[in-house]
Amino acid sequence: MQLSSQLLEKAVSAFAKLPGIGKKTALRLVLHLLKQEAGEVVQFSEAITKLRSEIRFCTRCGNIADSTQCSICLNPGRKQQLICVVESIRDVIAIESTQQYNGIYHILGGIISPLDGIGPDQLTIDALLDRIKTEKTEELIFALNPTIQGDTTIYYIQKKMTGNGCKITTIARGIAFGGELEYADEMTLGKSISNRQPIQQYIK
Amino acid sequence: MQLSSQLLEKAVSAFAKLPGIGKKTALRLVLHLLKQEAGEVVQFSEAITKLRSEIRFCTRCGNIADSTQCSICLNPGRKQQLICVVESIRDVIAIESTQQYNGIYHILGGIISPLDGIGPDQLTIDALLDRIKTEKTEELIFALNPTIQGDTTIYYIQKKMTGNGCKITTIARGIAFGGELEYADEMTLGKSISNRQPIQQYIK
Repeated sequence: MQLSSQLLEKAVSAFAKLPGIGKKTALRLVLHLLKQEAGEVVQFSEAITKLRSEIRFCTRCGNIADSTQCSICLNPGRKQQLICVVESIRDVIAIESTQQYNGIYHILGGIISPLDGIGPDQLTIDALLDRIKTEKTEELIFALNPTIQGDTTIYYIQKKMTGNGCKITTIARGIAFGGELEYADEMTLGKSISNRQPIQQYIK
Repeated sequence: MQLSSQLLEKAVSAFAKLPGIGKKTALRLVLHLLKQEAGEVVQFSEAITKLRSEIRFCTRCGNIADSTQCSICLNPGRKQQLICVVESIRDVIAIESTQQYNGIYHILGGIISPLDGIGPDQLTIDALLDRIKTEKTEELIFALNPTIQGDTTIYYIQKKMTGNGCKITTIARGIAFGGELEYADEMTLGKSISNRQPIQQYIK
């Protein structure tokens, strides 16, 4: 793409570095910002730099926080003995959006994946084991993606936990609401049959 | 979407204001920026604020420029008597990418569209008419989108120009390369038959 201005070129390449944004989209976004009031553009870039320089991570769960602990950990209405183990911050946001969960979280920062060179030491597994002991956790819910790496991670943590009385569960797998049986993969459909639930529990 | 941090919330809504970017994509982009080095994020936001505060528009054609005139107008290798009339800066970039055009441009800043409340006075038509006189333009190429508004704009400017010897042309309409006759709309196919070209001219 031939751009007639150095400044434009720089702004477009800055945007084009973002994931999923190509040169054409970058140009569209930059030209949109050009049309906005100068104050609004300053606000936009300030929001980003401020986030990067002032953001902190919760010392307890690893979530994004404005102070030393995140608003979820600090919320006294949340069950402090119930920890949901997730891979990343995005999973926390997804679960929070359901408004169905009232415990706290622990963010692993990834899952065990030897092929990608990610071992247990690079994740916050030790911190999780410490938390379970000191916080007297009663239940650990694994909400990891249903992949081999996810299952390996669950298995690894479970092995490390033997001996303490903490209950370990994982989120239910099965046919999604609105999904059609005909198009479900065999693995999911098979598991959803073997893990069938009593109707009473389902309706509740 | 429930976010646990005010800073994150602000950055996500700043991104979500951009066209074509929803809350989920905004979050993805912000989390990506969070993972980058602080210096890179500062560079990103500086490129944007600098663009907005320092950008200038070419006093001659209206294109984005780093000084009073844009690099295209200042290029002595370009035919200064050949003006291509376009709607916006994006059209200039599209035509420049073809590397087939060696004249200069005039950006109207829109097209006449009474339904959207855009009349000739809001466009740079007067400036164009002045340019044609002072720059002794020999040919004016209209490269506007083939809509009723585009045709109205061409008609309006053409009427205003009567009396001077400037040649007026418009870019060719027809079946696109790689397009299939079967799926072409009747208007395009009809026009492409009535405006058929000698094979010699086509091959050249």
